[in-house]
Amino acid sequence: RYGYFGQATPEVVRLMFCIVSGCLTEGRTFLSVSGEEMVSINTRDTVGIRMLQSEKVEVVLLTSSEDPVTEKLVDKLAKRTGCKIVQVGEEPLNELKLIVEQRKLEWKDVAYMGNDKADVNCLNLAGLSAVPGDAPVVAINAAKYTCRKVGGMGAVREFAEHILLQREKAKSLMKQYRIDCSSK
Amino acid sequence: RYGYFGQATPEVVRLMFCIVSGCLTEGRTFLSVSGEEMVSINTRDTVGIRMLQSEKVEVVLLTSSEDPVTEKLVDKLAKRTGCKIVQVGEEPLNELKLIVEQRKLEWKDVAYMGNDKADVNCLNLAGLSAVPGDAPVVAINAAKYTCRKVGGMGAVREFAEHILLQREKAKSLMKQYRIDCSSK
Amino acid sequence: RYGYFGQATPEVVRLMFCIVSGCLTEGRTFLSVSGEEMVSINTRDTVGIRMLQSEKVEVVLLTSSEDPVTEKLVDKLAKRTGCKIVQVGEEPLNELKLIVEQRKLEWKDVAYMGNDKADVNCLNLAGLSAVPGDAPVVAINAAKYTCRKVGGMGAVREFAEHILLQREKAKSLMKQYRIDCSSK
Amino acid sequence: RYGYFGQATPEVVRLMFCIVSGCLTEGRTFLSVSGEEMVSINTRDTVGIRMLQSEKVEVVLLTSSEDPVTEKLVDKLAKRTGCKIVQVGEEPLNELKLIVEQRKLEWKDVAYMGNDKADVNCLNLAGLSAVPGDAPVVAINAAKYTCRKVGGMGAVREFAEHILLQREKAKSLMKQYRIDCSSK
Repeated sequence: RYGYFGQATPEVVRLMFCIVSGCLTEGRTFLSVSGEEMVSINTRDTVGIRMLQSEKVEVVLLTSSEDPVTEKLVDKLAKRTGCKIVQVGEEPLNELKLIVEQRKLEWKDVAYMGNDKADVNCLNLAGLSAVPGDAPVVAINAAKYTCRKVGGMGAVREFAEHILLQREKAKSLMKQYRIDCSSK
Repeated sequence: RYGYFGQATPEVVRLMFCIVSGCLTEGRTFLSVSGEEMVSINTRDTVGIRMLQSEKVEVVLLTSSEDPVTEKLVDKLAKRTGCKIVQVGEEPLNELKLIVEQRKLEWKDVAYMGNDKADVNCLNLAGLSAVPGDAPVVAINAAKYTCRKVGGMGAVREFAEHILLQREKAKSLMKQYRIDCSSK
Repeated sequence: RYGYFGQATPEVVRLMFCIVSGCLTEGRTFLSVSGEEMVSINTRDTVGIRMLQSEKVEVVLLTSSEDPVTEKLVDKLAKRTGCKIVQVGEEPLNELKLIVEQRKLEWKDVAYMGNDKADVNCLNLAGLSAVPGDAPVVAINAAKYTCRKVGGMGAVREFAEHILLQREKAKSLMKQYRIDCSSK
Repeated sequence: RYGYFGQATPEVVRLMFCIVSGCLTEGRTFLSVSGEEMVSINTRDTVGIRMLQSEKVEVVLLTSSEDPVTEKLVDKLAKRTGCKIVQVGEEPLNELKLIVEQRKLEWKDVAYMGNDKADVNCLNLAGLSAVPGDAPVVAINAAKYTCRKVGGMGAVREFAEHILLQREKAKSLMKQYRIDCSSK
């Protein structure tokens, strides 16, 4: 129904931002008596991130200053996912604007995955945006796509597949558009 | 249906009590061979607690003497949530009565979240009260609100949003009441 | 439909056997790189065990020689639940027969909670028997009661409440029977 | 509907390959601040593996070079399940072809359990194949059987029971076939 002319450019995402806590993890932190802390991530989601990377989509993971993800964990996540990890404040937009500009991209070329109030502006702004299925209503309302999977259990993978599918559609639309133009 | 005159005062909660085990956590304790113990808490719930605190609702976490939450964990929870933590006995009402009186509040100004038999009296007494969706029937029957989310997975957050919504409603009712009075 | 005369004696359980792995725990073991092992138990279930104990039902926990529950964990479980813990072999009936006889009980006075093939004989024999909702079909078919809750997440508590309810029913039937007899 | 003559030989599986990450485990890895890593496996699944072994089906567990299952964990899994553990690359078929040939088997005698894109060729090739219920669509489409249970929570057990049931059916078909032949 929405053809090529209905939108400025097709959704060919070049950059994805993904909140760690609640999207890549479940949002749960395990606290031990002896002072240890644990979070869990899912192989399915890291495979999803690699699928995006192999299609030349850069993935940047976001941690918040209030997040229980310590420096050591950040190093480990960075190593396992091959992603750069950026710490954001109460309004992630402040830090992310610079990154988008540095890469000479516009927000419509960006995908954003978040899961709470703080993410609302970015969810609204990004060309593609998603929340895990168990996100609070305020985040669901701002996102363009709500995953059926919940955080830490495949939501990132599901959004990655969504992004790649949109990309495929956009490419075939562009191809079709060129055919139409040349045949005129 | 229930207008302002139908109740003594609107539900403007000033103080919330929340049982840790089964509400803020899932109720699960992880026991290791080497003697370690772990519980898990959810970022979504701690965000909910901060939402209440920023609206001037004091949140007090309750642990039971039978709970597997040790002193070290209590310190960590207190630091992460910014809440005072109080240990209660078999009947939480005994300890909580004093706290409510000290703050010169009445029980109708109090919100209570619990999840088992021991919480029945407090669930009945509090102006607003809730249990996680997976609570035993005895607790569900006593609570004024049953969360759709389960313990440790967003139930505290859901109740926090419920409290803030009731507060908004109460405030707009009070405002309407003043308008009605002054226009007479 | 099944009145008092329809059964030998009412279901007044005096002794409950409960398999640890898959009933009191989820059946999951967490294995760490450094050699640590963890299982999780739920406060709701330990409260259920205490409810039985306070009604004079002895609860005995069963571990299997193939279970990943080590000696240290067994000590901890025993301390937390106040239960005796017995190790059983491939056919739990062999060890449990002696315990039932020692207490001068019959199997109809016994409740049994298990969750796999090995438990089939005991599930058939016990006066009351149950499996968690996620048990394999072979165990579900042998059990008299299938919990809605799954292992490690409230199944033991649910069965405990079921036992206490049957006990109440049995007591009121016996009372009624005495009234009927004396009024003849 | 599909009688004995409708297939080359009945499904009597002699060898089962099973991906560890996402089938035997949930796919989740727990990462701790101090550098510890944990995965969880379910007693129900290890019982399923033993059921196959006692029916003379060899079970080989597969880890990937990208999997977060370290050497120590591999040793522990091998000990607990009694299985050989083989590390596979991006296309498991490369390593598994040799193993199938060594045992003088054909792929129709093999059962395969996987849960992602990399497993598609093996899922297509194996006589019996399955994915956990929460597998990505690409894997579900290639598998002959989709478990109702999810990874790490009984999917391996469910597939084991499916294999043994097919085996029973195949044996009774062969028996019937011999009766039919001798009665001619």
